[in-house]
Amino acid sequence: MSKGGFTLPGQTGYEELTLRLAKKWGADVIRDSDGTKLSDEILSAGYQIYSTICIVREHNEWARKHMDKLQQTFLCTPPKLSTVEKELEILIMESFFQDQFQVNDTLKAMSYWQVYDRTTNTLLDHSDWVYHQESGTVTIKAPVLWHHYTVSFVAYRIWEEISMYNHTTNNWSSEHLMQIDPRYPENQEYLLKWLRNWCENNPDTDVVRFTSLFYNFVWIWGSDERNRYKFVDWASYDYTVSVLALEAFEKEYGYRLTAEDFINQGKLQVTHMPPPKTKLDYMEFINDFVISFGKQLIDIVHEYGKKAYVFYDDNWVGMEPYNGRFHEFGFDGMIKCVFSGYEARMCCAVDVPIHEIRLHPYLFPVGLGGAPTFMEGGDPTRDAKIYWNNVRRALLREKIDRIGLGGYLSLAEPFPDFLDYIEKVADESRLIRSFHDAGKPYEIKTKVAVLTCWGKTRTWTLSGHFHETYMHDLIHIIEALSGLPIDVSFISFDDVKADRLSEFDVVINAGYAGSAWSGGDVWKDERVVSLLTEWAYHGGTFIGVNQPSAVEGYDSYFRMSHVLGVDQDTGARVCHGKWKFGVADDEGLLPEEGVALVAKENRFLTDGKAKTLLADDQNPVLTVNEFGKGKGIYLSEFIFTLANTRLLYQLIRYVGGEGILGKYMTDNLNTECAYYPESRKLVVINNSEEVQTTKIDTEFGAKAFTILPFDTVFMDL
Amino acid sequence: MSKGGFTLPGQTGYEELTLRLAKKWGADVIRDSDGTKLSDEILSAGYQIYSTICIVREHNEWARKHMDKLQQTFLCTPPKLSTVEKELEILIMESFFQDQFQVNDTLKAMSYWQVYDRTTNTLLDHSDWVYHQESGTVTIKAPVLWHHYTVSFVAYRIWEEISMYNHTTNNWSSEHLMQIDPRYPENQEYLLKWLRNWCENNPDTDVVRFTSLFYNFVWIWGSDERNRYKFVDWASYDYTVSVLALEAFEKEYGYRLTAEDFINQGKLQVTHMPPPKTKLDYMEFINDFVISFGKQLIDIVHEYGKKAYVFYDDNWVGMEPYNGRFHEFGFDGMIKCVFSGYEARMCCAVDVPIHEIRLHPYLFPVGLGGAPTFMEGGDPTRDAKIYWNNVRRALLREKIDRIGLGGYLSLAEPFPDFLDYIEKVADESRLIRSFHDAGKPYEIKTKVAVLTCWGKTRTWTLSGHFHETYMHDLIHIIEALSGLPIDVSFISFDDVKADRLSEFDVVINAGYAGSAWSGGDVWKDERVVSLLTEWAYHGGTFIGVNQPSAVEGYDSYFRMSHVLGVDQDTGARVCHGKWKFGVADDEGLLPEEGVALVAKENRFLTDGKAKTLLADDQNPVLTVNEFGKGKGIYLSEFIFTLANTRLLYQLIRYVGGEGILGKYMTDNLNTECAYYPESRKLVVINNSEEVQTTKIDTEFGAKAFTILPFDTVFMDL
Repeated sequence: MSKGGFTLPGQTGYEELTLRLAKKWGADVIRDSDGTKLSDEILSAGYQIYSTICIVREHNEWARKHMDKLQQTFLCTPPKLSTVEKELEILIMESFFQDQFQVNDTLKAMSYWQVYDRTTNTLLDHSDWVYHQESGTVTIKAPVLWHHYTVSFVAYRIWEEISMYNHTTNNWSSEHLMQIDPRYPENQEYLLKWLRNWCENNPDTDVVRFTSLFYNFVWIWGSDERNRYKFVDWASYDYTVSVLALEAFEKEYGYRLTAEDFINQGKLQVTHMPPPKTKLDYMEFINDFVISFGKQLIDIVHEYGKKAYVFYDDNWVGMEPYNGRFHEFGFDGMIKCVFSGYEARMCCAVDVPIHEIRLHPYLFPVGLGGAPTFMEGGDPTRDAKIYWNNVRRALLREKIDRIGLGGYLSLAEPFPDFLDYIEKVADESRLIRSFHDAGKPYEIKTKVAVLTCWGKTRTWTLSGHFHETYMHDLIHIIEALSGLPIDVSFISFDDVKADRLSEFDVVINAGYAGSAWSGGDVWKDERVVSLLTEWAYHGGTFIGVNQPSAVEGYDSYFRMSHVLGVDQDTGARVCHGKWKFGVADDEGLLPEEGVALVAKENRFLTDGKAKTLLADDQNPVLTVNEFGKGKGIYLSEFIFTLANTRLLYQLIRYVGGEGILGKYMTDNLNTECAYYPESRKLVVINNSEEVQTTKIDTEFGAKAFTILPFDTVFMDL
Repeated sequence: MSKGGFTLPGQTGYEELTLRLAKKWGADVIRDSDGTKLSDEILSAGYQIYSTICIVREHNEWARKHMDKLQQTFLCTPPKLSTVEKELEILIMESFFQDQFQVNDTLKAMSYWQVYDRTTNTLLDHSDWVYHQESGTVTIKAPVLWHHYTVSFVAYRIWEEISMYNHTTNNWSSEHLMQIDPRYPENQEYLLKWLRNWCENNPDTDVVRFTSLFYNFVWIWGSDERNRYKFVDWASYDYTVSVLALEAFEKEYGYRLTAEDFINQGKLQVTHMPPPKTKLDYMEFINDFVISFGKQLIDIVHEYGKKAYVFYDDNWVGMEPYNGRFHEFGFDGMIKCVFSGYEARMCCAVDVPIHEIRLHPYLFPVGLGGAPTFMEGGDPTRDAKIYWNNVRRALLREKIDRIGLGGYLSLAEPFPDFLDYIEKVADESRLIRSFHDAGKPYEIKTKVAVLTCWGKTRTWTLSGHFHETYMHDLIHIIEALSGLPIDVSFISFDDVKADRLSEFDVVINAGYAGSAWSGGDVWKDERVVSLLTEWAYHGGTFIGVNQPSAVEGYDSYFRMSHVLGVDQDTGARVCHGKWKFGVADDEGLLPEEGVALVAKENRFLTDGKAKTLLADDQNPVLTVNEFGKGKGIYLSEFIFTLANTRLLYQLIRYVGGEGILGKYMTDNLNTECAYYPESRKLVVINNSEEVQTTKIDTEFGAKAFTILPFDTVFMDL
């Protein structure tokens, strides 16, 4: 129990430290890090070795000779207004970071360029504009006065985004790395040969850690420092684009994609909005390619007797770990860097033999947010406690095989507290894993489904880290759910129509109107509405948050308003009287204190029957509506806090008929617990920075605990 | 100067008081009030006499004999869900106040009834449902399971709404009054005869005060006291509906209106939303009738040597004082009850010889809001000061001929302060009127237009009193403008297309997306966008508030975002980087203190160039954007306060090139002034409840003032 399941970043020149910490933390694996190489002393110390490769990067010599086979993307200029009666000139690269992009003006690429009159949504004929290569401008020959125009064009990406980020953030001065596109047969041939060669030359490597596959998340930089990050979407496909791909798509799917299918009036097709059919088709097409070429690489790794793990970030686009095809890659393991509970659950949910999470803090002078970590002013032990606290509650629910760190051990050495704390974390993680091995933890019977446009495709995630997606209610909800003893599924509207609702007791729909999370136009489908209505009437509970089921065009804005008993006035009902209501929590559904949720404008009770538990004046915040044998629950928003998490849990228990309080549940919302019936182990965690006491009712009587800040307690029942 | 322009409510039994106050206040007119009759002593005291008649009310004897000719309306049931596989029964009157409505189930009326499947927006065939008169239910024969249905039907209104309000609010026990519809020839004949008879029997009456014409604003009461006022819209036309009207409309306009043209998915066609063509046609049709029959009544009044004034409220619907036809009635005067500056301007803006405003407080025990006025706990003098303060600044800008009071003098007698204050108000109003008579007050040169769907049809108003419309930015803006020395026009999008923009220096567009005030779908018309763009580029300033020019379907949400430099992210741009900005007021556009405006979510700078003067973190609140020779100004909201009013004035002066500060402008935003160049009179008002000092620069040097709370100072220059 005191060893294994731990991946240590080795550091050349610090061999003694590496081996000392490997022993202290019970490491069984030593890895290299981005830009480092392990010394022979480390390689031969008897540990398994992970070696990191970024398959599309670090081939600059080849790339320079094949600049026409670099990765690409569509870009669209900001709108430009025609203010004089003459030609309109648009300098197409003006707003983009010149070090990142280079115009692709080959004939074939230009056949995909588009010029739009955005005032009228009109596509211009190619004969109505001309591109001047020398000046980099598009001239629109006869623009309509006072209309504004955009140019959508194809650009090579000439600086790999992670390299670009590290360069500019950490002032690196090394060569700008480029990324080659494995779509091109020449690049494929090169890469297969290169990997074979690499395997030959790295006999000590046990596991090839792919960081990651081929296509990075979209990250478009701008020319102006006041708006450097023009666009970033962790789960979008713009960076997979090339003429070759578009032509292959046309052949396979029988229709031609246009720039506008990606550019979408300059908004791009963000993951947070419902995907059109073109995007879904294209994702399938790219996924197909990523699997097929990815598998060739993994086969080579296996041929050399090594294992292949993949890092689930950066160049992960096209991998799609939850669409049922991931096993086709043949990966042996998956590594996910995590900051949050839901990210740990993302990792667990992948169909792969080994699940590893990389904890934070990264052993780096500064953290992702730029704050000091392993330098003066940093408190890495506290950082580690907070990170472990974020993640631990999720690990109690689902098994993770391994944890690990990344970065430079020498930076951690001056912080002995930190070294001790990681030892404790490693021990705890091994202990928790052993409980999972003995049998699943206790869960309540109530089954919950999260209903979105993406369904299982975006299991336990929206698009990126918590701090990038905090503006969406759903990320707060899934973060809360990630540590609760509840069976959670992620379903799409197609799942509803495939009659899967009977599998669930609770369906959650959360987000702002028109988003992929709320659903948007899919709510115009009366089948979706009717099936959910029927299911709720017969006992299901529909939990709607913010603007659930919202779509314009009907008598109500929330299509499920008859179940929720709550709707939103979008303006047309400003002259309608609203039902007055009192606020009461007769059933005791609210935790005693701490619930903090803010009202949204213009929500109202549809028929006055929903019970309001929380409100801001006469604006309902939390309501419970009886609907047939089922219920509708409305929440104006959801923010992840300990008290709100407890509220969500109590609501789910209540509607599931399991009692608001019950066994294997702490009586202090700052604490949580997990119980493993097979091994009769109880784990109690303090999620707060203060000492907490709590009682837990079990089959073997009530147990009382006093727990130090952020600490974990293990008990045999 | 010490007499005239004042209308006093006489009170029988208090003849001495009546005549004493008439003298004190300089009254030239004595009026009766609702439900009172003046004694001979008052009638013969040498004053002009106004007599109030409500032409459609107080004919209960006739009404009882002609219940099929009462006024009517369309009503729509709340949606009812089909939850069992059998017929669905809807009790159509269940949610409505039974004392107000009675089903009209005549064959002809039922041809207008409609049953809708609101889940799919499908109209059911008449053969698919049946109405049971005895039970008052509609049975839908084969509803689709889990769909919800509504019944739209025709109902008689059996209790006149103002009578109903007074009954239920003040516990009156008199007979419920009914309102007859002058659309019916029999009613017309009766009314013409009745009025002639009335004129014969009231020889002392000089002015017939119509309170008001035929059709009340819409006020639908519900059966449940928790939601008694189901719907109220001061300017909507539902209460003009009858089979007779609908049939005449069909004949005249060549198409048949349906219940749904009024019911609109249960939302009804509120004034705050853009009117569809059907509504505009129908308004024109009703206005035509109201003018033609109204004129017949007024002609009778004139025949008897009396004048005809009209009260601009209650049964005013169909009068439409600003569409260019109002003079056709032949009214001699217009009386408006006012609480706000904009209501005084509404009155001034009507094309009629005499403009009278009825001040508050009404001489009644309690005020409209239910607070005590002329009873223990009331402070009528303070109330009067506040009301006069609200209205006075508007009276400085435009001439009002008369002021007056309503109610019971005896209630005021115990408040000698109040009696003195009204004397002062009467004197001030006469003085101000005399300045207007000598010549127009000074205005800045900058011409402002308020751009909405309604244009001049809703001049100086939205729909009702301030407290009913406070949720709309535009009412705050026009209240601010009502007292500023600025020429203000109210224009529609058709005016823009009729090339009227060159008349204006500033165009204001304010309100939430989709509203009649912001504009809604009309912004899809590229002519509107192009013309405003051109006009702004050549020097105009477009001031956009809240969600100006907002409509879905384009690259920007605000169609004027290129002028404003600000747009709103409705969700699709959540992954787009936003321009960072600093906040500065380099030009000194902001008043020194007191400006309070709240940011709205997800507003952002489009190209980073707009200057931000106010912001909440990185959410712009007030921005100024240079656009060609013109400007775009964005305000996240507008709330009527003294400081915000000063801000608006300074912004308009600034963009008009008249200097932020200048002549005939107080240097203390709690005060305002008006200057009348012809008479060289300067009026300075203190709009606050504290003593204020201020300086004013004039052609004749700077003048300094110290003004008591709410007081008015007059100076000869």
